[in-house]
Amino acid sequence: MVMEPVNVIGAGMTRFGVLDESLIQLAEEASFKAMNDSQTLEQPFDHLVIGTQNPDEFINKGHLSTLMADWLGIVPAGATRVETGPSSGGSAFETAFTMIASGHSDLVLVIGVEKMSEVDRGTASKILAKMMSYENETRYGATPTALGAMVARRYMHDYELNRDELSLIPVKAHRNGTMNPLAHFQKEVTVEKVSNAQVVADPLTLFDCCPTSDGAASVVLASDRIVKDLRLSDQAVRVLGVGHGTDYHAVQYRLSLTSFGATVAAAGRAYSMAKIEPKDLDVCELHDAFSILELVNMEDIGLAERGQAITMVKDGSTEVGGQIPVNTTGGLKARGHPTGGTGVAQIHDIYNQLMQKAPRGLQVSNPVIGLTHNIGGFGNNMVVGVFSAP
Amino acid sequence: MVMEPVNVIGAGMTRFGVLDESLIQLAEEASFKAMNDSQTLEQPFDHLVIGTQNPDEFINKGHLSTLMADWLGIVPAGATRVETGPSSGGSAFETAFTMIASGHSDLVLVIGVEKMSEVDRGTASKILAKMMSYENETRYGATPTALGAMVARRYMHDYELNRDELSLIPVKAHRNGTMNPLAHFQKEVTVEKVSNAQVVADPLTLFDCCPTSDGAASVVLASDRIVKDLRLSDQAVRVLGVGHGTDYHAVQYRLSLTSFGATVAAAGRAYSMAKIEPKDLDVCELHDAFSILELVNMEDIGLAERGQAITMVKDGSTEVGGQIPVNTTGGLKARGHPTGGTGVAQIHDIYNQLMQKAPRGLQVSNPVIGLTHNIGGFGNNMVVGVFSAP
Repeated sequence: MVMEPVNVIGAGMTRFGVLDESLIQLAEEASFKAMNDSQTLEQPFDHLVIGTQNPDEFINKGHLSTLMADWLGIVPAGATRVETGPSSGGSAFETAFTMIASGHSDLVLVIGVEKMSEVDRGTASKILAKMMSYENETRYGATPTALGAMVARRYMHDYELNRDELSLIPVKAHRNGTMNPLAHFQKEVTVEKVSNAQVVADPLTLFDCCPTSDGAASVVLASDRIVKDLRLSDQAVRVLGVGHGTDYHAVQYRLSLTSFGATVAAAGRAYSMAKIEPKDLDVCELHDAFSILELVNMEDIGLAERGQAITMVKDGSTEVGGQIPVNTTGGLKARGHPTGGTGVAQIHDIYNQLMQKAPRGLQVSNPVIGLTHNIGGFGNNMVVGVFSAP
Repeated sequence: MVMEPVNVIGAGMTRFGVLDESLIQLAEEASFKAMNDSQTLEQPFDHLVIGTQNPDEFINKGHLSTLMADWLGIVPAGATRVETGPSSGGSAFETAFTMIASGHSDLVLVIGVEKMSEVDRGTASKILAKMMSYENETRYGATPTALGAMVARRYMHDYELNRDELSLIPVKAHRNGTMNPLAHFQKEVTVEKVSNAQVVADPLTLFDCCPTSDGAASVVLASDRIVKDLRLSDQAVRVLGVGHGTDYHAVQYRLSLTSFGATVAAAGRAYSMAKIEPKDLDVCELHDAFSILELVNMEDIGLAERGQAITMVKDGSTEVGGQIPVNTTGGLKARGHPTGGTGVAQIHDIYNQLMQKAPRGLQVSNPVIGLTHNIGGFGNNMVVGVFSAP
């Protein structure tokens, strides 16, 4: 059998940041932008898939899938919420993809959203920490940042990465963020500022860590039949591959601190389905919740040999004008990280890159193949997508 | 294109009830039973899909998908949690179905689970009520039972159903439950006992309402390739159709109190995919969270004309030996209702019916086609599955 081709035909996104709007308002804004972009405002959707990590505790509302289907006026479409921690958006995309690839659906709305600022920071941290192992991690006081710091310390030791080199990652992220009108942070930082900022978990400083954000992103997925019927081939970005992988829940059981097996598994599956190799990529969105993760992710998806990713950062290869631009719109660090929203925001941004509609100053030159990489849990649930320009 | 056929090749379930085991232990027990039943203990799973409504608040743990993939030893398989309120199990099944139907996966483990007894009853009610509309329902004190009572009152008025007739539903459920060793309740009740029990929300009494339970169920879904390679055709129950539908989130906006549009939509889609009609059904599992819902559901899926379902109950048509047996293993009322677990338990029980492995006294005579119907939210998110015997 042959899988039914799946296309992204439009995308929408809210500003990311600490916002006044409610989760519902954010999800609505992103969704209607995506429907408008895809010219599907008047089309009957078969399904809605929403990725969100924990609305029950962040905003005291549950069962978001029907709520949004009703709010957006697409009842009686099917509606499903997907949750895999911070890769909830990527997983929602994957579920929507299989619905169309199977012929189960022709037109599916994907939403990724989180509203994290209605609770105080301590509460938000406790809610997020539920994604980690209580038995092996949380009860000893470990936080995601503490685990990220362990990864950084080990990586710096194994590959002789120094503090100022690591700071180049947030510097690039913030510089790109200044040109992305939807980014949470739109202010440049310097190596000196990053390296000397308040330490959150040694060696990670405040500027190595992504913020907690409010925000939503949405993409519309469609079968070839819809693309043909609505004459949307000029704006149909093909989904070439999707891969999903897991690793041991607690970090202590993993084979390595400086490579995520779940990424290697997910990327391998996505490349295999897409029939491409890492060298074919023109632009990537990688899950840089902490600066060090951008280097780990680059190596895990095959852009660089182990320990060598920093040389590409230093020689400008990952800049917008470089050989393989990474996180052109600011990444989690500057675009922001509304957890369930991030995976769909990555697809939104890759869609716009492949459509040559990136914000001024951020457009990569004629990209053909783009990749998204979304992390769930602490490094144990990865979703990778590969996309090609119309 | 032709959808890849999807098969249920095995099923497992824990006892339902107020149990000592943790959510993880319950999910593990059901999963290993299903793997053992499907002879896949030594096979590499491509994906795990877990349906659970709110582990973050019921047991203070999040991100269950990776946790279970690790616990069950199937890393680096992809792992996804699906949530649609109490239809989370049905939705997890649907997601797993599309993964195989698309060719994305060959072997997928589906788990439905909830552990509700670690919090007190008041807390459990508050957690469950988050699936309803806060603006239109919860803030006025409405509970799922109160909405169920409105449905019952309206149905009794419109169709002249009397109290003792309604009581026949729990009587049948409890009688079937006595023969299901995994049921939460295994004790018969009488019409008199149901009709005269404590009123929870007029006209519904304690015995019209399903319990809150702990429990897990699991099924293994496989492509034809796996069925052929492992020589499992004798135990491969084909998934003929899957349908998912929604309705307006709050009851006040719906067109009817005595029919759920989401069921009509979901069943219509499932029948269309399966190319069958209601008259082709041999056995059904319907979501009877409240007694009245069994009648509403029977009519919505097309087993009876409006207002006529009770005549089938009265003449024995829905008994195990009747023309179209409904909820042969006790339904939500007697089997119990660990919310995310129910949708998968229904498939477990239909699988065993079609395999002629139902508990003693509950086996329907040579059933060929079975149906499952799972409700999410209060009547606004339905998943219907249609299955055929090997």
